[in-house]
Amino acid sequence: MKYIAEINIMPHTELLDPQGKTVANNMKNIGVHGIEDVRIGKHIVLKLEAQDEKEALQKVHQACEKLLANVIMETFTYAIRNEIELPSVHV
Amino acid sequence: MKYIAEINIMPHTELLDPQGKTVANNMKNIGVHGIEDVRIGKHIVLKLEAQDEKEALQKVHQACEKLLANVIMETFTYAIRNEIELPSVHV
Repeated sequence: MKYIAEINIMPHTELLDPQGKTVANNMKNIGVHGIEDVRIGKHIVLKLEAQDEKEALQKVHQACEKLLANVIMETFTYAIRNEIELPSVHV
Repeated sequence: MKYIAEINIMPHTELLDPQGKTVANNMKNIGVHGIEDVRIGKHIVLKLEAQDEKEALQKVHQACEKLLANVIMETFTYAIRNEIELPSVHV
């Protein structure tokens, strides 16, 4: 079965996010007011082959822990779904 | 009203994503097999003040178009929700 995993990796809420802070401070310069906080992380879309949903979840968790996220500074969340149609991505 | 916006910014599906390609190629080296494609983008969480949902959506859309996304190379999607409790972020 083919699955699509959507992963969000964000800086820990206890940590400063200087990139987000800079973006928040500059929002008013582009005419967008009322932005109070910005935090910037990564959004990763994985396409994977697995026997069942359990195996797919395991693979995604492993990928996050071992490679995608720095667990000292970041937290990750993910969701998977069956791939119902082939995306138009050719790489 | 306070709102939380969750924004995903991804490279256009027509474009190569070299960072994602590298990650995909290295998954097997860390023992995760069956990963066929990886695309890496940004996940941004905004906290904002707006009069109503319509205004909040407008602000988020403006922020994406003018500052957060490079619309030539990236696409963005977003969702907003009411902030129901204060997060523990102090910046």
